Amino acid sequence: MAQVDAILEGNRLALARLLTQIENRDPAGQVAMNRLFPYTGKAHLIGVTGAPGTGKSTLVNQLARHYRRLVPPEGQPRRVAVVAVDPSSPFTGGALLGDRVRMRDLAGDPGVFIRSMASRGSLGGLSGSTAGVVQVLDAAGYEIILIETVGAGQTEVDIARLAHTTLVIEAPGSGDDIQAIKAGILEIADIIVINKADRPGVQATERALRNNLLLGHPVMRKYPHHQVVIAEPAPAPAEGVNGLWIPPILKVIATEGSGIVELAAAIERHHQYLVSGWEWQRREEERLQSEFDNLLQENLVESWRSRITDGLYQQALRRVVARDLSPWQAVQLLLEGTPP
Amino acid sequence: MAQVDAILEGNRLALARLLTQIENRDPAGQVAMNRLFPYTGKAHLIGVTGAPGTGKSTLVNQLARHYRRLVPPEGQPRRVAVVAVDPSSPFTGGALLGDRVRMRDLAGDPGVFIRSMASRGSLGGLSGSTAGVVQVLDAAGYEIILIETVGAGQTEVDIARLAHTTLVIEAPGSGDDIQAIKAGILEIADIIVINKADRPGVQATERALRNNLLLGHPVMRKYPHHQVVIAEPAPAPAEGVNGLWIPPILKVIATEGSGIVELAAAIERHHQYLVSGWEWQRREEERLQSEFDNLLQENLVESWRSRITDGLYQQALRRVVARDLSPWQAVQLLLEGTPP
Repeated sequence: MAQVDAILEGNRLALARLLTQIENRDPAGQVAMNRLFPYTGKAHLIGVTGAPGTGKSTLVNQLARHYRRLVPPEGQPRRVAVVAVDPSSPFTGGALLGDRVRMRDLAGDPGVFIRSMASRGSLGGLSGSTAGVVQVLDAAGYEIILIETVGAGQTEVDIARLAHTTLVIEAPGSGDDIQAIKAGILEIADIIVINKADRPGVQATERALRNNLLLGHPVMRKYPHHQVVIAEPAPAPAEGVNGLWIPPILKVIATEGSGIVELAAAIERHHQYLVSGWEWQRREEERLQSEFDNLLQENLVESWRSRITDGLYQQALRRVVARDLSPWQAVQLLLEGTPP
Repeated sequence: MAQVDAILEGNRLALARLLTQIENRDPAGQVAMNRLFPYTGKAHLIGVTGAPGTGKSTLVNQLARHYRRLVPPEGQPRRVAVVAVDPSSPFTGGALLGDRVRMRDLAGDPGVFIRSMASRGSLGGLSGSTAGVVQVLDAAGYEIILIETVGAGQTEVDIARLAHTTLVIEAPGSGDDIQAIKAGILEIADIIVINKADRPGVQATERALRNNLLLGHPVMRKYPHHQVVIAEPAPAPAEGVNGLWIPPILKVIATEGSGIVELAAAIERHHQYLVSGWEWQRREEERLQSEFDNLLQENLVESWRSRITDGLYQQALRRVVARDLSPWQAVQLLLEGTPP
C-alpha cells in the first residue's frame, strides 16, 4: 500500500492526506490505519490543557523548539508533532493566530509537523478522530506528540486519558481566583505549570495550587499523613513519594522561554517514572481499552439502527413525547422487537 | 402502587426515597418512574451554570425565595425544587456549605424541596440520573425546578439540553478575563447574569460579554446585519428579534438580593417566548429523544456484553494491546462473532 509506505518513509504530503481522511472518517483512512497500527506505541504523548488566555500555544511552541534544539549530552533533537485541538466555536479566534505564530518559528523544520483540528461535536470533548490522528503521527515516527486543547471539563478528562503526561497550565490571577481553581482539574495533572510567572499574584496562585494539591490529590488521599506538611510557606511536594508520582508545580514565562528547560526535564522525569514501573503499560492498556469500547459502542448502535426500521424508532419516540410510554419502557419494547 | 400515590399526594419522604432509588439505579425506582412519567412535562426547568466562585448557590437561593414570595397581581407562590449537582471532587468544598446556607433560608417551607447530587462519573457531564431526578420532581408537582451545576464544558452542554431556560453566571474580573470568557459557553445561554455587579470591572465584563454575544451568537450569525450595532457603548440586544430570542445580560448582586426581581421577569419572558411558538415543544422533543437515545445505547451495549463471553472480549483487547490488531479490526471481529 503506497500511502502507508510513503508515511513510514517520512512523506509529509502522504501523512497530511491520511490525517484528513481520518478527520473525515473516510473508510480508506481506516484501512491505512489498520496497517499503521503495529508501528504505534513509541511516541511520548504529552497533553497540554488550560483555560483560554493561559498561553498554551506559546508554551507548546517553546517546548517544540526545545526538543528540536537538544544536543548531546542532553539528548538528540527529537521529532515533534503538535496537534492543536481548537473548539469550533466562533468565540475563539485563537486557532489561526496561534498557527501563524507557530508557523513563523517552526515552519521549514522537517522534524516538526503541526496539525490543527477542529473539535467537532459539541463544546468539550476531544474530537473522536483525535486518537486516530495521534496514532498515525506516532506510526510516522514523531517521538514527542504535543496535544494542545482548550481546557473545558470533558476535554481535560479526555486528554488525560489519551496522553501519557498531562500538563495543566494556569496563569496568575487576583486573590479571588484561589476559589476559582477549577474543580477536579488538578486531579488529571501530572505536571502543573504556572505560566506568565512574571505577573503579580504568582505567589498566591502557587500557594493555592500547592495547598489544593496537597489536600486533594489522589496520592495525598492515599497517604493522608502528608497533609501535615501544609504550612506557610507550603513546602514543595516531592515527586515520586513511595513510588507514586506527585505533580510538581513549575513556574514558566513562555513568551521569554524561561523555565522551559526545567519543564522539559520534569516531563522527562515523568516519562522515566512511567516506564520504570507498570504505569506506562497500564496507561497504554487503559487508553486502548477506552478507544476499543468507544468503537464497539458506536458500531453496535449503528448496526442496530440499520436493522430496525425508521418507522418503529419514530413511533416509539412519538409515544414518549406524548408521555404515553416512558423512555425506558420504549427502549424495552424496541429491544424486544415489539412494535411500540 | 403506594409509593407513587404518596409522591403524587405530596409526601416528601416518599419523594426523597424514590430519588435515592433513582440515584442508585435501583430497578424499583425505574418501575415507579414509569408510573410517574405521564405526570411530567409541566415544570419549568431552569439550568444555572457558571464557574466556581461566581455565586451560583446564592443566586439559586434568592430565586427560590423570590418564587415562594410571589403575591398577586405578580403571581402566586410557586412550588420550587432545587437540584444541586456538585462534582464529587475533593477540591470543591462548596456542596456542604451551600446546602447549609440554603437550608437556613428555605428549610421548613413545604413548597421547597432541595436535593444535592454528586455528579457521578467523571469531571464534567451531568450524572445520568439527573434527568430521572428532575422528572420525578416534575411529576411531584414542583412548578419551578432550578438545576445548579458547576460550569465545566460538557456539563454546560448537558444542562442546556435538559433545561428549558439556561442561565450562565459570570462575575466581574480583571481586564484579562475578556479573553478568558469560555469558548462556547455563551452559545448555550438563554440569559446571561453578571453576579457581584458591585465589584470593579463590571463594565468591562459586560462589554466583553455583549460584544461576544453580538458577534458570535447563533442568532447573530443568522442575521449578520445585526453586527453593525457593535459600538461603544454597545447597545443592549433586544430580546426576540424576528421571533428569535437574543439572550439579555442582567446585572445582579445575589448576596443583597438586588436584581433578582428583574432576573425572574427575564426568565418569565423566556418562558413566554418558548410557549408562544414551537420552541417549548421542540426543546421537549429534543430532550426526550436524547434521553431515549442514551438509554437505547446503554441497553444495546449491556445486552451485547451479556451475550459475548468475557474471554472473547479480553482476548480481543489483549491483541489490541499487543498491537497485533487495530481497535477497529478487533471490533469488527467481535461483532462478526469471529473469535479474535
